[in-house]
Amino acid sequence: MSLQDKGGQDKAGQDKDGQDGRPQGGDSTPAPRPGLSRRRLFGAVGAGAVLAGAGVAVGRLTAPEAAETSSSTVTFHGSHQAGIVTPAQDRMHFVAFDVITDSRDELVAMLKKWTEMAARMTAGEEAAADGAIGAGEYNPPTDTGEALDLHASKLTLTIGFGPSLFEANGKDRFGLADKRPAALADLPKFTGDALEPARSGGDIAIQACSDDPQVAVHAVRNLARVGFGVVAVRWSQLGFGRTSSTSTSQTTPRNLFGFKDGTRNIKAEDPSAVSEFVWVDPQDDQSWMAGGSYLVTRRIRMLIEPWDRTTLHEQERVFGRSKGSGAPLGQKTEFDDLQLEAKGAGGKPVIDKNAHVRLASAEELGGIQILRRGYNFTDGTDGFGHLDAGLFFIAYCRDPQKQFVPMQQSLARNDALGEYIKHVGSAVFAVPPGVREGDYWGSTLFET
Amino acid sequence: MSLQDKGGQDKAGQDKDGQDGRPQGGDSTPAPRPGLSRRRLFGAVGAGAVLAGAGVAVGRLTAPEAAETSSSTVTFHGSHQAGIVTPAQDRMHFVAFDVITDSRDELVAMLKKWTEMAARMTAGEEAAADGAIGAGEYNPPTDTGEALDLHASKLTLTIGFGPSLFEANGKDRFGLADKRPAALADLPKFTGDALEPARSGGDIAIQACSDDPQVAVHAVRNLARVGFGVVAVRWSQLGFGRTSSTSTSQTTPRNLFGFKDGTRNIKAEDPSAVSEFVWVDPQDDQSWMAGGSYLVTRRIRMLIEPWDRTTLHEQERVFGRSKGSGAPLGQKTEFDDLQLEAKGAGGKPVIDKNAHVRLASAEELGGIQILRRGYNFTDGTDGFGHLDAGLFFIAYCRDPQKQFVPMQQSLARNDALGEYIKHVGSAVFAVPPGVREGDYWGSTLFET
Repeated sequence: MSLQDKGGQDKAGQDKDGQDGRPQGGDSTPAPRPGLSRRRLFGAVGAGAVLAGAGVAVGRLTAPEAAETSSSTVTFHGSHQAGIVTPAQDRMHFVAFDVITDSRDELVAMLKKWTEMAARMTAGEEAAADGAIGAGEYNPPTDTGEALDLHASKLTLTIGFGPSLFEANGKDRFGLADKRPAALADLPKFTGDALEPARSGGDIAIQACSDDPQVAVHAVRNLARVGFGVVAVRWSQLGFGRTSSTSTSQTTPRNLFGFKDGTRNIKAEDPSAVSEFVWVDPQDDQSWMAGGSYLVTRRIRMLIEPWDRTTLHEQERVFGRSKGSGAPLGQKTEFDDLQLEAKGAGGKPVIDKNAHVRLASAEELGGIQILRRGYNFTDGTDGFGHLDAGLFFIAYCRDPQKQFVPMQQSLARNDALGEYIKHVGSAVFAVPPGVREGDYWGSTLFET
Repeated sequence: MSLQDKGGQDKAGQDKDGQDGRPQGGDSTPAPRPGLSRRRLFGAVGAGAVLAGAGVAVGRLTAPEAAETSSSTVTFHGSHQAGIVTPAQDRMHFVAFDVITDSRDELVAMLKKWTEMAARMTAGEEAAADGAIGAGEYNPPTDTGEALDLHASKLTLTIGFGPSLFEANGKDRFGLADKRPAALADLPKFTGDALEPARSGGDIAIQACSDDPQVAVHAVRNLARVGFGVVAVRWSQLGFGRTSSTSTSQTTPRNLFGFKDGTRNIKAEDPSAVSEFVWVDPQDDQSWMAGGSYLVTRRIRMLIEPWDRTTLHEQERVFGRSKGSGAPLGQKTEFDDLQLEAKGAGGKPVIDKNAHVRLASAEELGGIQILRRGYNFTDGTDGFGHLDAGLFFIAYCRDPQKQFVPMQQSLARNDALGEYIKHVGSAVFAVPPGVREGDYWGSTLFET
């Protein structure tokens, strides 16, 4: 019975490049990579089993509803990690781990295992070759199974290493202390910070982004699963909607204050800005970081109830943009230039001197830019009758000390938005370069 | 500048049924209802503004990525509320409120306002006619704006009234005590319950379901906004993936244990089962509940780490189904009959006597069925190195005392799954009938 069932599926599982004859679906997203999805794998089960004469029929595994999933995959291997300049997917699961072993070998073994799994899962395959039902009846499955019928939906997995991995309490935990980049300093305390330790820091971070939240959650959960005994989840955050575009092909989404967010973000289509502000300068950093970046996360609670009771005038003053169109105040359309010097009635600046758009602008920050890749979140209630909602801010930059820190120092002191938000979580991670075939996440750090 | 900008948009906003000339998009979901989406409204801004000669250009409001949103709407008015037998949407935001006023008039006024807003938002419109930018610069916007560019994506909003609305601490709070249905008794304590008060109960519940999470969150947030002073959020829960099919048109999704969930659920296409098990019996309930139902929610934490370390054999024994195909053990395909009497080697039952599928079956429960409509959730970490993840169970039934309670009593005592789950939140609500044009949520309760 169930053994026979699984036998048939194992057999077919080895033939996962086989065609299954189901329609391809009207997927309009870029870079479809046919032939390697879990759905197709399962489709192939039926054909394989029947051909093998095993008498195994297949359950109802029809094509998903059109809007549900996408068979598009994002290439895992490369000189940079995916998930940074990749056009931001719709959903996110971010997790920070504490490393709980003292063994460098165990840590490296886990990173090698993780890399294999990440390459598979981002291709829409199960976490391991034997997977949810092929590891034998008396073994735990090597994939947890909740994404069995789902496409990759552009899943990317991006890893980062926190300052505490290199050194904690003065201790060189894994012989990495002299590899710690200067740029990976702990962030300073900013004005108004209300950080919760349980939502901050971490030795290792994984950012999982996908258009399907179940696919992102599945990936994080399976990495956590095989990390048992080596890492433990320190905090995690689900983001339900992207708040920044990272490509000119995307429309600018809205944050939970109802404003378009990320209009002036660095876009993947601007390689010189990406090169200057995102990827590390190989002349000015640890050599193992060449091709890498730095990642800053901030869990920003939005005080949406007070916000919702302010006037439109105040809201637009705070952001410096029109709420409807997203145009800078004084301008007509979203992508019009900021006119920071423009004066209105009585000589007052059209864009308030403390407007968010002004203080976050490269013009006011000596040319500094960062690549934002944040997500909206809503996590239940705060216990005081309010929704616990806000923006999970993610930024990639070449050097947080020279980009994020001065930007946030300015914003924390003066941003008119500060009255309506609270930073409750914070972390910084060094994001190693992309993985080449045969290498693993962090190999440039651990093997040099 | 921004005033002029808004002036132009106000004007166009009044013409929101106007055609905007943008392509309709290749939406494949059922019951598209053209002409009433927020996106179309905003599209109309440009045309209206240009025609009015106001000189207002429009920002980049192009069509969404194909998989992102759907323009389909679900009809709000009717004899039953939507969101019960409606094919389960992909995402959910559920909120339970405490009523914080003593005034029945304030409560009724809020319910009337909510009903208007719900009818608008489920049609893809802003929460109020003037909306995010049309209420005047010196007023708070009447829509919070984060869904301005999004379609309805099949949004449904479903209201329920908890036992404590009728009577709390022996007090008839709003003159409703004699209207309290017998079926709306508090749930008994079940074996193993580990309920947290902050995740349980509530005077009023709103279930918001949509294929786009931002649309569901927007709806709940706007209802909470106008409820200020009348209600406060008691708890809320985001669900990222549906776990049950409520229509034969849907594939059966998987829960976070990797198993197909809801194969034997009541389906909308079985009107006699819906009539018998979901809608109240008008002969045997309060008259104001005719056309209504009852809603039980249980926040079920899944202990996924222990689960992930069990064998496939144990996992399939616990559920009584094959993990891959979802077939009942001993059968071949998902929708094959349960063979509860079948014996295997040594005379042992093929489906374990404590298997979940057996104990939850109508066969073992004297014919009882319920309509399940739950969602997977992942909410950060539990502080012990584990993901806080599980199933937000939602069930609709004619009488929880006769359906959910005996079912859960049997499951709580004997279900093999009990070792791997923990019920941490619980609530029950009376779900009034659907709203007819001109009526409001709860009018049958308050007006009789």
